[in-house]
Amino acid sequence: MKFSKDLLLEIHQNIKPFINKTPVLRFNFIDELCGCNVYFKCENFQKTGSFKIRAASNAIQCIPSKYKENGVITHSSGNFAQGLACASSLQNINAFIVMPENAPKYKKDSVLTYDVNLIECESTIDSREKTTSKILLENDLHFIHPSNDIDVILGNSTIGLELLYEYPDLDYIFSPIGGGGLISGIAIAADILSNKCEVIGVEPKEVDDAYRSLNSGKIQYNSSTNTIADGLRTNLGGINFPIIKKLIRNIICVKENEIINALKIFIETLDVIIEPSSAVALAGLIANKEYYRNKKVGVVISGGNVDLESLKLLIN
Amino acid sequence: MKFSKDLLLEIHQNIKPFINKTPVLRFNFIDELCGCNVYFKCENFQKTGSFKIRAASNAIQCIPSKYKENGVITHSSGNFAQGLACASSLQNINAFIVMPENAPKYKKDSVLTYDVNLIECESTIDSREKTTSKILLENDLHFIHPSNDIDVILGNSTIGLELLYEYPDLDYIFSPIGGGGLISGIAIAADILSNKCEVIGVEPKEVDDAYRSLNSGKIQYNSSTNTIADGLRTNLGGINFPIIKKLIRNIICVKENEIINALKIFIETLDVIIEPSSAVALAGLIANKEYYRNKKVGVVISGGNVDLESLKLLIN
Repeated sequence: MKFSKDLLLEIHQNIKPFINKTPVLRFNFIDELCGCNVYFKCENFQKTGSFKIRAASNAIQCIPSKYKENGVITHSSGNFAQGLACASSLQNINAFIVMPENAPKYKKDSVLTYDVNLIECESTIDSREKTTSKILLENDLHFIHPSNDIDVILGNSTIGLELLYEYPDLDYIFSPIGGGGLISGIAIAADILSNKCEVIGVEPKEVDDAYRSLNSGKIQYNSSTNTIADGLRTNLGGINFPIIKKLIRNIICVKENEIINALKIFIETLDVIIEPSSAVALAGLIANKEYYRNKKVGVVISGGNVDLESLKLLIN
Repeated sequence: MKFSKDLLLEIHQNIKPFINKTPVLRFNFIDELCGCNVYFKCENFQKTGSFKIRAASNAIQCIPSKYKENGVITHSSGNFAQGLACASSLQNINAFIVMPENAPKYKKDSVLTYDVNLIECESTIDSREKTTSKILLENDLHFIHPSNDIDVILGNSTIGLELLYEYPDLDYIFSPIGGGGLISGIAIAADILSNKCEVIGVEPKEVDDAYRSLNSGKIQYNSSTNTIADGLRTNLGGINFPIIKKLIRNIICVKENEIINALKIFIETLDVIIEPSSAVALAGLIANKEYYRNKKVGVVISGGNVDLESLKLLIN
């Protein structure tokens, strides 16, 4: 596992036509609250509303040529479904997206705005995997995992690349951890592009598999997924974990009320609607702000796809 | 009335320590919807949540020296109250803010976070003006009008300045019109800094005093203020109008449902919470998009101060 700056730049160049260079926002309120300089990398303003289009765009670029005609398949209830739908449309690759029937309607509708095949399955993991396998075999497709895939990880590295090119003197970058694809990509970029920037993972205490995995040196699993941060319920994968083990020293766990508090700060004070998973990184910084006093801290906002009904419940 | 580039740059330099350089956001969804390249200048991310801090900061810089000890006074139910409270605190000038007793609690609370004198009055214009006069005379204060004041206008010109320095080849800038202070400032900047950029005013049809004033050549008044865009209910003033008459050729009027539609696009699709007055400029562009096809269009988002209760009503 050794990646070069040239490789990351080449990947960025290759996916540039299909993604946005997302803005970095700063807020006096946050700097004062946290006692440090905070730079929000806003993937909530990314095409399809989350960073997943970066992952999907690079994965599509890298599919073996024999699958270019038949196409690709994934299963996702969330942002990767939209990301792959958009990325495959833009690159004229046939895509099959397996989504659980109980996935939010607005997410299904969003996938259907692209020219892709949406297949519904039952909401169990078993049904997802069986449905995906069946269609994969029937159509001879290439499977792309939403997080546990090296091309997905390298696509995500472009977030760290953009952020560190714009702010090369960041001391830290905070990233949420779910499946581990996002933080792995960012950590690779920070490792290559900065000689001081440390990447800090943050995950909900309720699904602290990454924290326990890093401490024990072996992948651990969650017994429940009882967190508001629905994008982070996924478990770490075998491709992500070695990267995390090598490059991440510190994972912070945050409580549900800390996540909700950070989410409210975004929506009520900063006027930016983000998804609960995106509030997790800020929650981790707030909970440990004494340690990061006067530092330059990047915080990755992973996405903004939340339906307003749940938002209304939250702000009540 | 002749202003120079040097003057605008000097004003910008003077108020820089007290304001944010606000980000310019772009959205593929909007570019596709409008058929042109749209650059949102996001004053909703400005300190105090609206552009008014620019106006107030410059007005405070320009008060006659004899008032520097006694201080300044304004009356405002909205963003200028917060803007002046913050600007006067930052520049250590004593400030009296007259607010109607029925102003939203969150706006009063926001003013009270600064070290200023908040005076409540009845909600009539008459009570506002009488209360202001009384306190002004008692304390020998300098009055600053929220929009009809040349230093306020020149403070607002820094929005146009920042936008045109970042995107010098804009063909148009869309701005909402209420009292006229915002568009006058932007029009002065565009007149000085660009040889092609035209500033377009947009106002609610329900309060179309600026549209009728520009057409008749004389200030017209509104018989009612029945618009959701509460920041634009103010009438044009005698200092703004000559500037608008000289520099603005086109004012677009938009219906209430067009404003609500644009507001919903921001909140539901772009994930940015803005106040209804800020949605007016985009509503004007959408309603006339054929005319602006393939052009580069700046759109000023004037502020983001809206309480979430009214937001919840809107998104229902």
